[in-house]
Amino acid sequence: IGSRRRETCRGDTWDCRPPDVVVWPRSVEEVSALAKICHRHRLPIVPFGTGTGLEGGVGAVKGGVCFSLRKMDRVLDLHQEDFDVTVEPGVTRKALNSYLRDTGLWFPVDPGADASLCGMAATSASGTNAVRYGTMRENVLNLEVVLADGTVLHTAGEGRRPRKTSAGYNLTNLFVGSEGTLGVLTKATLRLYGIPELMVSTVCSFPSVQAAVDSTVQVLQAGIPIARIEFLDDVMMDACNRFSGLSYAVSPTLFLEFHGSEKSLEEQVTITEDITRGNGGSDFSWAQDAETRGQLWKARHDAWYAALALRPGCKAYATDVCVPISLLPHIIVETKKDLTENRLTGPIAGHVGDGNFHCLMVLDPDDPDEVQRVHQFTERLARRALSLNGTCTGEHGVGLGKRALLQEEVGPLAIDVMRRLKATLDPENLMNPGKIL
Amino acid sequence: IGSRRRETCRGDTWDCRPPDVVVWPRSVEEVSALAKICHRHRLPIVPFGTGTGLEGGVGAVKGGVCFSLRKMDRVLDLHQEDFDVTVEPGVTRKALNSYLRDTGLWFPVDPGADASLCGMAATSASGTNAVRYGTMRENVLNLEVVLADGTVLHTAGEGRRPRKTSAGYNLTNLFVGSEGTLGVLTKATLRLYGIPELMVSTVCSFPSVQAAVDSTVQVLQAGIPIARIEFLDDVMMDACNRFSGLSYAVSPTLFLEFHGSEKSLEEQVTITEDITRGNGGSDFSWAQDAETRGQLWKARHDAWYAALALRPGCKAYATDVCVPISLLPHIIVETKKDLTENRLTGPIAGHVGDGNFHCLMVLDPDDPDEVQRVHQFTERLARRALSLNGTCTGEHGVGLGKRALLQEEVGPLAIDVMRRLKATLDPENLMNPGKIL
Repeated sequence: IGSRRRETCRGDTWDCRPPDVVVWPRSVEEVSALAKICHRHRLPIVPFGTGTGLEGGVGAVKGGVCFSLRKMDRVLDLHQEDFDVTVEPGVTRKALNSYLRDTGLWFPVDPGADASLCGMAATSASGTNAVRYGTMRENVLNLEVVLADGTVLHTAGEGRRPRKTSAGYNLTNLFVGSEGTLGVLTKATLRLYGIPELMVSTVCSFPSVQAAVDSTVQVLQAGIPIARIEFLDDVMMDACNRFSGLSYAVSPTLFLEFHGSEKSLEEQVTITEDITRGNGGSDFSWAQDAETRGQLWKARHDAWYAALALRPGCKAYATDVCVPISLLPHIIVETKKDLTENRLTGPIAGHVGDGNFHCLMVLDPDDPDEVQRVHQFTERLARRALSLNGTCTGEHGVGLGKRALLQEEVGPLAIDVMRRLKATLDPENLMNPGKIL
Repeated sequence: IGSRRRETCRGDTWDCRPPDVVVWPRSVEEVSALAKICHRHRLPIVPFGTGTGLEGGVGAVKGGVCFSLRKMDRVLDLHQEDFDVTVEPGVTRKALNSYLRDTGLWFPVDPGADASLCGMAATSASGTNAVRYGTMRENVLNLEVVLADGTVLHTAGEGRRPRKTSAGYNLTNLFVGSEGTLGVLTKATLRLYGIPELMVSTVCSFPSVQAAVDSTVQVLQAGIPIARIEFLDDVMMDACNRFSGLSYAVSPTLFLEFHGSEKSLEEQVTITEDITRGNGGSDFSWAQDAETRGQLWKARHDAWYAALALRPGCKAYATDVCVPISLLPHIIVETKKDLTENRLTGPIAGHVGDGNFHCLMVLDPDDPDEVQRVHQFTERLARRALSLNGTCTGEHGVGLGKRALLQEEVGPLAIDVMRRLKATLDPENLMNPGKIL
């Protein structure tokens, strides 16, 4: 399994950490029965969705049993009028949206990879659409979870799916983002949205990072319900141009997408153009039909491969930090200086509407000095985000590599509370041990 | 204190439950020091904001010390560009919005009462704007909490305010909705929104509950970013007409509000009018200027007093359930039948875009038979919501009165998990004992 997932560069996690056994349960009853066996024999349980996580969350650092959930792949209980659906853990976001194709509904959270929806819930994933539609935290209504002892919990009560509730502790959001350390997610009830009548996309380049971020803040302040607002730095744009044979300006750039009706789009676009022009942005080139939009977003979606292509034969590792939006220009400028000074290749792409960005670190895994420099750089970057009231991870999770940073971020008491919660639900430390805490 | 809050009718909770002592701390240090004294002497702690909760959450059922937080009323750390603010627990939502007046920003969550924002976080409050802006669950970024032993926790790390994070367990949303049973909230960092350029409101009456709810579902399906969509039944409309000297049709009615720019409003309104007309709705009468809108919403906001005025000298108690939207017509029709059959006065008003509604029960507290009938009615109503995959409380919380219903809603394992979490954070059961669990 380890070999099928992207490897990461965080020091000791380059290695594949295979489990002792892999099981492919087909139902919650089988997950529960297997968990009971593991519990009896004190075997670690490592839930596995698609293995597309970026922080080593599926590494079996203490061996044990990998629960691959891909055979539980049914979409259950679609309620079109109520805008909700329940899925088994093997259903990916693309599979769900393909299932929903003829209903006029969609599930918008898009972390890039075609991840499983329960895996996305486990890591509190988000991505390009979060500025408009929220992250997994806002879009999971209920979870079915197999706990460490094999019992089956429904976080909001079995089958319940009101759009809001004040009934008791919010167990659903305790499990969203728990990265498999509190239980195995075996079902998720999700909020759906109407597919917008129209979508238009555009690209706009800026004289500086500050100008691009100022435009973003002003667009949000103007109440434009922008669906995507993605930042790419000059290095990233250069890589995209080379990789996809494009000819965008090699400068700080925003990729934007608007969702709505014709009139609403017209207005969103007019106001946004005014704002970007006021900040020295280039003229827009609009894409409305699906094909042109696809080409435009392909450049953004291919960023990972474009970055890799900068240095053939190398590996890539995506960092992830998030800060209050107004502090983005400062941290991005500092970070670019850091990259240059340390002779590192790390094009920047980010969900700028949320203050979240990534450096796509491209490095030679056989060069221990470079590996070390990348490792030190990513720690400095995370600490820079922390010093600006931000977080060491906006959407990738803590996994193995960011446990020490999490301690710095939340402090000893919050860590102690998290440890006590973990010990309460998993006293033998069997659920995905070694992650988060 | 008990006498200053609305009394409730749930059987044994008519009585005021005064604490042994009231303290008015002025800082988190004082809250912490007082909590340490309570901890040492095993005295219950009952946090008190404005006392506007509806489920007896501030009753001191085991005596102890009431922590009135109204003297901690500073707005701290407004970050306009980042759309966030931090407030002390005595700041109410109206006080915050008044403070924000000149910034172009506002905090939209509006439960009706001018509640304290930390109290709203404690009960996971929402209200009329939730369909557009979410509930407290989606709008709290960080909390400062004094735990049962007097230690001071920052749920997302001290001073942190990124718009999103995947760093560790979501402690923030464990405390949102915990109703004071896990700690005293002493600071909340909240998301803010740009004040919409324009707002227009309207009233539309329908031939049936089904027609009003069908309109709501279709408006949501059409992707109209409606800001408020409130349902009032015929009895409620009659009460409002009488109380406020109005002449609305006495039939199922929607109060609607749209936020946006001129063009966007034009379009939202046109589509909505098409939808409501298609469902037999009346013509709209529009209100755009603040005064006319104010008059229109006054009818909705005065619903409580209008209901009370139906039977002078009586008391009122607001129920609260929430179901998937498509099931609203069924439950409302059944509930109206139940009210008639049991000779009860209970006009219905609801946040129909969320599937959430209330019966404003008007009753004579000195008539034990009527008190008993109301009690049995509200239990039947909650069970009806539960039988339709809903919740026994969409926004009021569990408090004292809905503990048994919560058990039915989430089942024994979820209750056990909640109890274990409570015991982990408050092993002596000092924090607002007797509530939720």
